[in-house]
Amino acid sequence: MIVVMKRSASQQDIDSMIQHVESLGMKPVVLTGTERTVIAAIGDERVAGVSSLESGPGVDEVHPILAPYKLASRELQPESSVIRAGSLTVGNGHVGVMAGPCSVENEEQIVATAKAVKAAGASALRGGAFKPRTSPYSFQGLKEEGLKLLATARAETGLAVVTEVVATEDVDIVAEYADVLQIGARNMQNYRLLEAVGKTSRPVLLKRGPSATVDEWLLAAEYILDGGNPDVMLCERGIRTFEAHTRFTLPLASAPYVQQRTHLPVVMDPSHGTGHTALVPAMARASIAAGADGIIVEVHPSPDHAMSDGYQSLNFQQFEDMMTECRRIAAAMDRKLGSDA
Amino acid sequence: MIVVMKRSASQQDIDSMIQHVESLGMKPVVLTGTERTVIAAIGDERVAGVSSLESGPGVDEVHPILAPYKLASRELQPESSVIRAGSLTVGNGHVGVMAGPCSVENEEQIVATAKAVKAAGASALRGGAFKPRTSPYSFQGLKEEGLKLLATARAETGLAVVTEVVATEDVDIVAEYADVLQIGARNMQNYRLLEAVGKTSRPVLLKRGPSATVDEWLLAAEYILDGGNPDVMLCERGIRTFEAHTRFTLPLASAPYVQQRTHLPVVMDPSHGTGHTALVPAMARASIAAGADGIIVEVHPSPDHAMSDGYQSLNFQQFEDMMTECRRIAAAMDRKLGSDA
Amino acid sequence: MIVVMKRSASQQDIDSMIQHVESLGMKPVVLTGTERTVIAAIGDERVAGVSSLESGPGVDEVHPILAPYKLASRELQPESSVIRAGSLTVGNGHVGVMAGPCSVENEEQIVATAKAVKAAGASALRGGAFKPRTSPYSFQGLKEEGLKLLATARAETGLAVVTEVVATEDVDIVAEYADVLQIGARNMQNYRLLEAVGKTSRPVLLKRGPSATVDEWLLAAEYILDGGNPDVMLCERGIRTFEAHTRFTLPLASAPYVQQRTHLPVVMDPSHGTGHTALVPAMARASIAAGADGIIVEVHPSPDHAMSDGYQSLNFQQFEDMMTECRRIAAAMDRKLGSDA
Amino acid sequence: MIVVMKRSASQQDIDSMIQHVESLGMKPVVLTGTERTVIAAIGDERVAGVSSLESGPGVDEVHPILAPYKLASRELQPESSVIRAGSLTVGNGHVGVMAGPCSVENEEQIVATAKAVKAAGASALRGGAFKPRTSPYSFQGLKEEGLKLLATARAETGLAVVTEVVATEDVDIVAEYADVLQIGARNMQNYRLLEAVGKTSRPVLLKRGPSATVDEWLLAAEYILDGGNPDVMLCERGIRTFEAHTRFTLPLASAPYVQQRTHLPVVMDPSHGTGHTALVPAMARASIAAGADGIIVEVHPSPDHAMSDGYQSLNFQQFEDMMTECRRIAAAMDRKLGSDA
Repeated sequence: MIVVMKRSASQQDIDSMIQHVESLGMKPVVLTGTERTVIAAIGDERVAGVSSLESGPGVDEVHPILAPYKLASRELQPESSVIRAGSLTVGNGHVGVMAGPCSVENEEQIVATAKAVKAAGASALRGGAFKPRTSPYSFQGLKEEGLKLLATARAETGLAVVTEVVATEDVDIVAEYADVLQIGARNMQNYRLLEAVGKTSRPVLLKRGPSATVDEWLLAAEYILDGGNPDVMLCERGIRTFEAHTRFTLPLASAPYVQQRTHLPVVMDPSHGTGHTALVPAMARASIAAGADGIIVEVHPSPDHAMSDGYQSLNFQQFEDMMTECRRIAAAMDRKLGSDA
Repeated sequence: MIVVMKRSASQQDIDSMIQHVESLGMKPVVLTGTERTVIAAIGDERVAGVSSLESGPGVDEVHPILAPYKLASRELQPESSVIRAGSLTVGNGHVGVMAGPCSVENEEQIVATAKAVKAAGASALRGGAFKPRTSPYSFQGLKEEGLKLLATARAETGLAVVTEVVATEDVDIVAEYADVLQIGARNMQNYRLLEAVGKTSRPVLLKRGPSATVDEWLLAAEYILDGGNPDVMLCERGIRTFEAHTRFTLPLASAPYVQQRTHLPVVMDPSHGTGHTALVPAMARASIAAGADGIIVEVHPSPDHAMSDGYQSLNFQQFEDMMTECRRIAAAMDRKLGSDA
Repeated sequence: MIVVMKRSASQQDIDSMIQHVESLGMKPVVLTGTERTVIAAIGDERVAGVSSLESGPGVDEVHPILAPYKLASRELQPESSVIRAGSLTVGNGHVGVMAGPCSVENEEQIVATAKAVKAAGASALRGGAFKPRTSPYSFQGLKEEGLKLLATARAETGLAVVTEVVATEDVDIVAEYADVLQIGARNMQNYRLLEAVGKTSRPVLLKRGPSATVDEWLLAAEYILDGGNPDVMLCERGIRTFEAHTRFTLPLASAPYVQQRTHLPVVMDPSHGTGHTALVPAMARASIAAGADGIIVEVHPSPDHAMSDGYQSLNFQQFEDMMTECRRIAAAMDRKLGSDA
Repeated sequence: MIVVMKRSASQQDIDSMIQHVESLGMKPVVLTGTERTVIAAIGDERVAGVSSLESGPGVDEVHPILAPYKLASRELQPESSVIRAGSLTVGNGHVGVMAGPCSVENEEQIVATAKAVKAAGASALRGGAFKPRTSPYSFQGLKEEGLKLLATARAETGLAVVTEVVATEDVDIVAEYADVLQIGARNMQNYRLLEAVGKTSRPVLLKRGPSATVDEWLLAAEYILDGGNPDVMLCERGIRTFEAHTRFTLPLASAPYVQQRTHLPVVMDPSHGTGHTALVPAMARASIAAGADGIIVEVHPSPDHAMSDGYQSLNFQQFEDMMTECRRIAAAMDRKLGSDA
């Protein structure tokens, strides 16, 4: 922790800060510059109360030195984690491909989609049964019925099922049907829910909130890891910026950046990250070229009749074409795409 | 709903869109311009599936015309809502003042703070018992014990209690102790929680998520109103932008803008909205001058020893000084501040 | 300068950094923590090449300690600067009020506006003669003819004239007619232009670029100060964020924040900062309550027929009403508004 | 142009808007919905004054239909433009590669870099002679001496030279030495400069401003095209967002999006777009996979001793490795990289 004092700070302010640092169990080192005094606090800065140092008299700024997360840190675990769930492998040279509709609508829709995405090389089926929707007047998902239809689709195709859980009270039933539990962007900081999925044995796909910093995202993962579940995939789905021609801005550099900081795999979501069907294939290719460990893509038999997210869904042919392109990019990266052996 | 077709759209694309609009129960009007064809869809565009029009062949863009919320809309209820909860009045010429610590820490702290903020003119006591924290290693609040201490402080001062609820399973117990239920920014789109507080009879203070649009915020309010609870206050606490010298950016123009769109009162949070003690009084004054219906401010007996948010808390003297300044601004606005009669 | 080494940094990396710091004329102090080594570099970090320390082997992050600007810093000049230009005073308890149309359109328009804003209490007339326009097909201003009309309006009313200069080759002629030279947001980092106005004797109103950090803004002011012109006013006119219901987001906290850092006065522009007539008065009031030293507001005889910026302009009655409200807020702040004595 | 009236708009307001639309030479079509009246204005909405419709009585919102740019539009010119300048080809299956130092520092540095990047497959040399710098105390470039050194490097290697011009008065001399004129992000809306380069016969690389919308960027290109210069390359170098771990956020989706809207080629700048050496190769690969027509990359013999931008520059070995990876991605996209035939 580096505490920068104001130029106007008195010796009393400096002495007070020295004592405060010591009272937190850290060792203060005073650096007297020509214009400012800086107090370096050596020790574990992750203790409660450290952030309040900024309120001390004469303090200008406080800079933390250590990352606030531990279990997620690559410093703790240098080797990259690999996540496996049925047909899905993410990491270790495998680019996982999770594809399917935003919402499960009916058996015909989900089974047809599962077959189509499997044929094109996907390694998991995504589909929402419990849907968090911005408007209370929008379709809220088929709930348990949707989970059963996903299980049917898995039985028909062998594809692992990735589906969202939105509330602690649903964790058990979703974990019963699903292979991977998805935490949506809106719930990235729903800590009770993170604690609940941390107690299950299912891998978790943790989406980044649209205004979350990378530290906040990794701390959300830390809640799950700290709960005892080591199988967390991070999913970047775009941040909110002034750029209005896409629904969100997909900051692809977060793949290589986050991979430096954590051993957890990073999955990209070009569907939510762009919000437009026409932009999805380019961003899927780019994700793989940037080194992402997986992609998750919305696919629907007939996007312009979808009950949700049609504007960003691919139809079967578009998905197949995208996979053909992505396979070439994956090969150029010495990676295997989806179900490729 | 306005559907703008691409310049390259064929007559078949246009005919297809006309049929699609009709199938959704809306009346299409075709506007043929020199460069583009536009199809206006007249009728209630809040039906499921409308957004998927964008996926239709030949479509360039879709612009909605109607606001997506109804119950929150000022068009439905032209007169401004007033919220009352014990000592607290928000709206109708009263600028509500909710003040207190980020976290309830112990009886001495919360009672002393309640007395101090009451003496300075606050009309409600804020304080967190259930704390959502970014890091799993941070202090998570005293939970039910904290609620009891808040009730003690209310008994001593008569101040209404505002406190956060973070999970559906806690709604009953929090509603038992609190006068106002706060939904935090991280939970603004935790729809189960919104539904749960929508079923209580306690007024709700709904914080805006740091990346939520105004429409998303009002739709979150709509969940609560639609659940049967008419007493919702909107609380602006800052959005995430590139501006790094403040913790968040407090977009004060949201007060007058939102008041045009909705009858619900708007409360400003200059503490979270700036993240720095030194900036809080200026933004509290500015909030009142902008026409906000209330402010919520963090106050602690000793901010540099607070267990959370010390860097943005005022001490008692600072709060008293701020209230003196704010009282003059409120008078200049023909409003009453806090407990002023 | 604080250099945080990676956990994986070798002793050789650390030694290399120590030498590098010394070669830049700074004194290195090595702080060995439990997890990281930190090297504090004591001395003037504003030397060329310092930022490249980040490229050194084993370096994780570099944090500067000193503000990058000097002449603009309040540490150098503790007392606040006051700017005076004819009828205009900004600072020292005076809230300057600059009002007028976006563009000078003709004599009748500019003279009528000057009279109206003077009658309502403005202390300067704003109006654009050289207009930077986003589209090459938009009205580009009357140029020198516009300057002459501004001079006519000054002759009729006694109001000081504030007008924009967009190119070095125009500085002389604009300085001949204007009392204050405005640098627009698009030109905040047009350094040749900053150098050119730094050589004039006219006060400068320097608008913040919509994506400029405060440091970048103050460094732009530093170019003007360094050129020999001490009379710089900073003008906040809004930053670009995801908030789409306003044209820009006016981050009012920049007034008190910037006033802590610099002795230069801060002026707020609620017209560009909101982009909507209906929101301007509330944000003008809020600016004054936040402690801004001035406001600049667009006023037009008939906004819906304006050649530019009509959507954010006030008509005469709206401006007069706004001034009445602002006068009360200024009084509550113990300040004088515009031409009030 | 679609004008949405407020629910409270009177028949008089509607009649007034109809007349106003007609006075602008457009044909009004009135659409009466259940809740709102919408007036569609058919005709060329790019006329002066249209934006001021928003100020009309009873108006809620105005949505433009047509893109504000013409010459840059793919609707006007469906086939993609190809830019050629000496050794550099951008477009038509060629991914142009411009590489070199941020600043030209001396002959040895620039010639060595030119040789190294040529050997690795670059098709042009970049290097700054006139440097716009955030601080007046930073190195401002070698100016004409730098241009001469670039010409020397071109003579030695045959590489086309790309260099920035920052002021109208320098356009002639820069155009004398350079093969491509770069307009930097800070000058994207320096319209005089755009007009000046629009009158030269050199291709222009137009960087996007960090807060510019795509429309603003294409309108800046329109200034150059409208001036008579058809050879404009658009360069995306990142936007300013809350994401703080990268210097800017590189919104890669702008490549496919912009290519839909314009015939001009799009070049990506992963150096400024990330601000960190370690992230540049991943984003260069991703740019090519997303379909960009070129990349521009900072390369320096010894980044940690560079006079500017060292933290985001590659050394020779890093650039060679990056090119090897990029060549594989380009092949997977059926494109040729840099100087590959």
